[in-house]
Amino acid sequence: MIKVTEDNQYVELTSPTILPKASGFLWNEKMMIHVNCRGYAVAQFMQPEPAKYSYAPNLEAKTFMQPEQPYYAHHPGRFVYIKDEESGELFSAPYEPVRKQADEYTFAVGKNDIHWRVVQDDICIEMSLRLPKEEVMELWRVRVTNLSSRKRKLSIYPYFTVGYMSWMNQSGSYVENLQSIVCSAITPYQKYQDYSKIKNYKDKTYLLAEHKPVSWEVNQESFEGEGGLHAPSALQADTLRGGDALYETPVAVLQYRLELDAGAEQEYRFVFGPAHDEEEIERIRQHYFLKKNENGQDGFTAAEQEYADYVAAGQGNIQIETPDGWLDNIVNHWLPRQMYYHGKTNRLSTDPQTRNYLQDNMGMSYIQPQIARAAFLTAMSQQQISGAMPDGIILHPDAELKYINQIPHTDHCIWLPVCLKTYLDETNDYSILEERVSFADSEQQASVLEHMNLAMRWLIHERDGRGLNYINQGDWCDPMNMVGYKGIGVSGWLTIATAYAFNVWADIAEQAGHAEVAGEFRQEATQTNAVANEYLWDGNWYARGITDDNVVFGVSTDVEGRIYINPQSWALMSGAADQEKREKLIRAVEEQLESPYGVEKLAPSFTSMREDVGRVTQKHPGSAENGAVYNHAAAFYIYSLYLVGEKERAYRLLRKMIPGPNAEDIIQRGQLPVFIPNYYRGAYRQFPRTAGRSSNLFNTGTIPWVYRCVIDGLFGLQGHPRGLLVRPQLPEDWNKASVTRLFRGAELHVNMEKDASVEAMEVYVDGQRIDGDMITDIQAGTTYDVLVKLPL
Amino acid sequence: MIKVTEDNQYVELTSPTILPKASGFLWNEKMMIHVNCRGYAVAQFMQPEPAKYSYAPNLEAKTFMQPEQPYYAHHPGRFVYIKDEESGELFSAPYEPVRKQADEYTFAVGKNDIHWRVVQDDICIEMSLRLPKEEVMELWRVRVTNLSSRKRKLSIYPYFTVGYMSWMNQSGSYVENLQSIVCSAITPYQKYQDYSKIKNYKDKTYLLAEHKPVSWEVNQESFEGEGGLHAPSALQADTLRGGDALYETPVAVLQYRLELDAGAEQEYRFVFGPAHDEEEIERIRQHYFLKKNENGQDGFTAAEQEYADYVAAGQGNIQIETPDGWLDNIVNHWLPRQMYYHGKTNRLSTDPQTRNYLQDNMGMSYIQPQIARAAFLTAMSQQQISGAMPDGIILHPDAELKYINQIPHTDHCIWLPVCLKTYLDETNDYSILEERVSFADSEQQASVLEHMNLAMRWLIHERDGRGLNYINQGDWCDPMNMVGYKGIGVSGWLTIATAYAFNVWADIAEQAGHAEVAGEFRQEATQTNAVANEYLWDGNWYARGITDDNVVFGVSTDVEGRIYINPQSWALMSGAADQEKREKLIRAVEEQLESPYGVEKLAPSFTSMREDVGRVTQKHPGSAENGAVYNHAAAFYIYSLYLVGEKERAYRLLRKMIPGPNAEDIIQRGQLPVFIPNYYRGAYRQFPRTAGRSSNLFNTGTIPWVYRCVIDGLFGLQGHPRGLLVRPQLPEDWNKASVTRLFRGAELHVNMEKDASVEAMEVYVDGQRIDGDMITDIQAGTTYDVLVKLPL
Repeated sequence: MIKVTEDNQYVELTSPTILPKASGFLWNEKMMIHVNCRGYAVAQFMQPEPAKYSYAPNLEAKTFMQPEQPYYAHHPGRFVYIKDEESGELFSAPYEPVRKQADEYTFAVGKNDIHWRVVQDDICIEMSLRLPKEEVMELWRVRVTNLSSRKRKLSIYPYFTVGYMSWMNQSGSYVENLQSIVCSAITPYQKYQDYSKIKNYKDKTYLLAEHKPVSWEVNQESFEGEGGLHAPSALQADTLRGGDALYETPVAVLQYRLELDAGAEQEYRFVFGPAHDEEEIERIRQHYFLKKNENGQDGFTAAEQEYADYVAAGQGNIQIETPDGWLDNIVNHWLPRQMYYHGKTNRLSTDPQTRNYLQDNMGMSYIQPQIARAAFLTAMSQQQISGAMPDGIILHPDAELKYINQIPHTDHCIWLPVCLKTYLDETNDYSILEERVSFADSEQQASVLEHMNLAMRWLIHERDGRGLNYINQGDWCDPMNMVGYKGIGVSGWLTIATAYAFNVWADIAEQAGHAEVAGEFRQEATQTNAVANEYLWDGNWYARGITDDNVVFGVSTDVEGRIYINPQSWALMSGAADQEKREKLIRAVEEQLESPYGVEKLAPSFTSMREDVGRVTQKHPGSAENGAVYNHAAAFYIYSLYLVGEKERAYRLLRKMIPGPNAEDIIQRGQLPVFIPNYYRGAYRQFPRTAGRSSNLFNTGTIPWVYRCVIDGLFGLQGHPRGLLVRPQLPEDWNKASVTRLFRGAELHVNMEKDASVEAMEVYVDGQRIDGDMITDIQAGTTYDVLVKLPL
Repeated sequence: MIKVTEDNQYVELTSPTILPKASGFLWNEKMMIHVNCRGYAVAQFMQPEPAKYSYAPNLEAKTFMQPEQPYYAHHPGRFVYIKDEESGELFSAPYEPVRKQADEYTFAVGKNDIHWRVVQDDICIEMSLRLPKEEVMELWRVRVTNLSSRKRKLSIYPYFTVGYMSWMNQSGSYVENLQSIVCSAITPYQKYQDYSKIKNYKDKTYLLAEHKPVSWEVNQESFEGEGGLHAPSALQADTLRGGDALYETPVAVLQYRLELDAGAEQEYRFVFGPAHDEEEIERIRQHYFLKKNENGQDGFTAAEQEYADYVAAGQGNIQIETPDGWLDNIVNHWLPRQMYYHGKTNRLSTDPQTRNYLQDNMGMSYIQPQIARAAFLTAMSQQQISGAMPDGIILHPDAELKYINQIPHTDHCIWLPVCLKTYLDETNDYSILEERVSFADSEQQASVLEHMNLAMRWLIHERDGRGLNYINQGDWCDPMNMVGYKGIGVSGWLTIATAYAFNVWADIAEQAGHAEVAGEFRQEATQTNAVANEYLWDGNWYARGITDDNVVFGVSTDVEGRIYINPQSWALMSGAADQEKREKLIRAVEEQLESPYGVEKLAPSFTSMREDVGRVTQKHPGSAENGAVYNHAAAFYIYSLYLVGEKERAYRLLRKMIPGPNAEDIIQRGQLPVFIPNYYRGAYRQFPRTAGRSSNLFNTGTIPWVYRCVIDGLFGLQGHPRGLLVRPQLPEDWNKASVTRLFRGAELHVNMEKDASVEAMEVYVDGQRIDGDMITDIQAGTTYDVLVKLPL
């Protein structure tokens, strides 16, 4: 089995199963490779830091979700193996790891649960997942139904990945009195100062069962044996082995044996999640399974209900019914859900980027405006007295600016007026401008009005002699870290965006009675637009910027990165583009950036490094910022089209952002249409095979802008200090649409109809025609019937 | 296939194969979970930083190898699929991923190659891996032999993992003119300052083939299809698909189709590794496959030979032949190989820990002492003028102290005399003491003698009022970061080790003619030993230390961590322990720390946190520093036993460190005996099931100490300024042993025999009996026959 060769050159093994991890290593001056008898290998070389060329299928444990992340056999998952005790046949639900094609299969992504229904050989497995509202845990139901006309003997084995918890300390066992598998780990730390943090971590992973299992397995390796995850050796035995995992990879597998008469069913419930200690698991067991509330519900059922209520509270403020049923579905159900997620969780970050934080809360203005209000004040309390906004907003006393938030970006001030505008439109709460807020670097307090003025003046100050805004190491959306790191290069987009921000702020100030401020920034906006037209207009579109070496880029002479969407959208918004320029740039975008999956961020995608631009050019062509259909940017283009009345084009592009209803489109995107991802793969003209694929990431600033496009643009039901503006931009082929609009406590049932008999829009409120396009004097608590007649 | 439910609550999918990545997400106030239609899930919660409770099977991409690391289906590997084109039967070599039991199987770990021989259905696959000496690449041969008596039609498919290279930019394609699969990636970076580093990285991974393949596949997902890695869908087709990977996980698979007559064979060769660009791959192709040298060898064959020569140059300076053939095998072949690896590569680190760097080079004193000499000078040039040694030695201009090297440890000065001693014993090069070396924090230069004095005086200075050495945030081998972080707690081991270091330094100084220095430190040693006996002797053994709160620990009243090996070993070495204490502590070690797999580091292993000790108590019981058979520490105990003449016990424990020759032992360790790992799992008395398992990590300071035990202890052939001391400590049941000892350029053939006719050892050189136990006047270039007669 194991021997040394005669010449002492080798030690030999003659079976890979008796010593499955047997390995050897080779090294040379610059590398080492550790090779396993079964073919596995770890190779590392120095350049000078350790590097790899053959990679494991995932990234480090602590990053956030990655775009288009790959799955692989041992990817974490929640599965149930089902064994027919008579035939020995095995399958798994939902599909992995056995991958047996089911007779019937449904995966249903819902608003407050996700469930599956899988039928195989007349056994139906229904699995559902819900969360409680506050606690960190998964609530699982597994129901087994015998659809056949005979009695069936089955074993079912819930298999929940625990995985490689820690190289420092990991173990697992079944704890009888908790009816739980409990796996323990300790978060690695080096510095003693970190101990006080990690000591309170929820480092245990438990699978708590409502029903007592027949047997269990907590050791990944013992479970799989030579069969592997698709046919685990442990499932060949009558019962699982029990035992423990001692510094071995833990897993949570339970076995239930059941005999089901024809038509009978049995349900199992589980709680899976992290805990600090066994006492906590005991409390969870008591609460979720053992005790009942006054309605006779246990905590599990009550938590499911509470969570449904929680999600339901996140409804938006329009419900629509249009000729486009798919749009109705998305706008009525999924968009507000995704917007609510952003507003409630701030993307589960302790230091959200300032622009994200402001835009996520702009979205919250449509759902729970009091949360948005508080967030705007929090953000401004972290402003510097110079007017500069930080790169991230600290939301937790222990939080620090991390990752990208340590790299200075120059755009954060832009978002203050832009996002505040929506809050004011919805609430008319101009009193926020009088709130007094402190600064990050001063004891001093100032009103929000003054904070905003400071932010705007900071933008004026951070400009070169021509009046173009410095880009520094980045602005927004295109991480161009080398355009202006020497402090000379400028951003075309940021300059134009500044003009837009000035205009928006001037509007706000004017409405709030600060005519002088309004005048000042209106003039600044005009001047900035003039500067943009002088230095950035390339003949058919606006350039993206000018580098430290005074090279204008994002222009017609560039082979890659010839045109960027953001300067075009914002030039429509800021008023920089006159009618002629508008037409030219819209045509250029159509020709170069529009694709079957939406508007791309830039084109052609960079296929190699452009050193005077920087990081975006290192991204994969068509991915993320390098030529993707970056929905956040695309949403701004749609918004800008509505602003200039390009309603047909705007609607067409809006619909491209929402995959479906045809299956081919959904399949090409690779994503069920329950959220808008941060991007679809672009570079359509260069790499059509992969174009349109979803990033599968649901964190994105896109959502509130799409919602705003729908409210302010498509249906034109935008708030105003004096009431509700009515300026619909329905597409040509819609004859009618109805919208229930929740607005400042009132409910407006708005019916829009195209009518050959009208020449111009007519608005009727409770049957009475009103003058103009503003519904005024709207009373909270009242319901209004609004009829909008539109010319054909 | 995809539909929205009537109530608009769900979007449903009715087949997991048409949209295999379809997913949904749920979130609540503190967590989110992203669930895939097939059961995969990514869940994350905040505490307050993002954390997991269901983990992927590996750690982040850039850590070094982890102990006892788990393998899993998609672990990186190098495999060959073999398909019988007539029967359609599939198997894989070496074993994964198909896992078909072979008819014959051999995995052979050699000194300069690793190879397999796998026979299945009369097809023999031989795979071998070698490295070149300097370049970062793998040299693979795959030979297919038809062992049957009929013609066979086969396809073979080398499958080399490329994997998830980067979330920023990854792709792969087959490059016709390079006859290579070339996969490209860009190392992610955020700060523009990092670009200048990453731009020169070897970020491409290539598989270069000598023979043109019939077809290829570079897309992991297309290759596997629904079949999975154990039965890839792509192998069902006649040829592979070709195509590319565009921001999709790349893989390198080639197909060769061959018809082999009975007995015929065909060999394929491949180069696999990282490259900067295609030009580099072209150069490699030219050099390794296309051009031939003056001997008619291509670069591939020449590199294999050069590498064999390179490894062969790392021979040690003893070759032994004893009644213990297994020991002979390990000492003659594998120990020097592992020692050479350490000395040549410094563990592939740019900032090796100071103690590791010094000990690895202590080992190099036996192989290439000029490398050791330079390393000692490098280390001392990074000493501070205060005498303090840094935590890590910077070996590259761009290197920084990382990870553990940023945490202050107090033991580094200890290793200077301890390691230098071996260099001096081997070379007699006392001139090194006169070398002038600068400091890290001063322009000043000083002789090595002065550097050493400063280091010793730093140890005297860093003590409390009792004369016990502060531990600060750690000393050695037991990362006890909370014993003394307040600056009060002291280390028992370090205090005792200081006494030993003083004695060693006094010996060296005395030999070099510095009697005053010798006297000074001899006296310091005596005093330190007295202090140790006063404060640390617990009645039967020495305590490990005294905490900031003045709690003595590692003592009989402790329930866990009652006894630590290091203070005991070093008390034998330093002379602190008199005869009575020696006997007591050796008995205590036997009773509490010895196990079938060697001496444990401490016992009982900690099963929960002891906050006044710190991190070691958080390690898994029996793992790494928490009660493992930590071979480095165990080697010191063996060394100390030889120093006090406990030869039987020393030999017994030495043999426990070398698994084998019986297969059961090797299998329990889980490791082929080609290297000594840094630890075997301990906690034998608490968790016997897992005790003895190898960490599988081959980086360890153990090796030079085992070698030193063999040379200075077992065979007693230690260098001395005046020649070679002969003081063997052969175990009772050996009647003879022979050793070829290379020593200062001479070759001594030493035969040791037990002889009933002698009362005391007699030494004969070239037939002439010498007085005493010192062979003097040894001439380089000369061969000596030495006979050592030992009493029974």
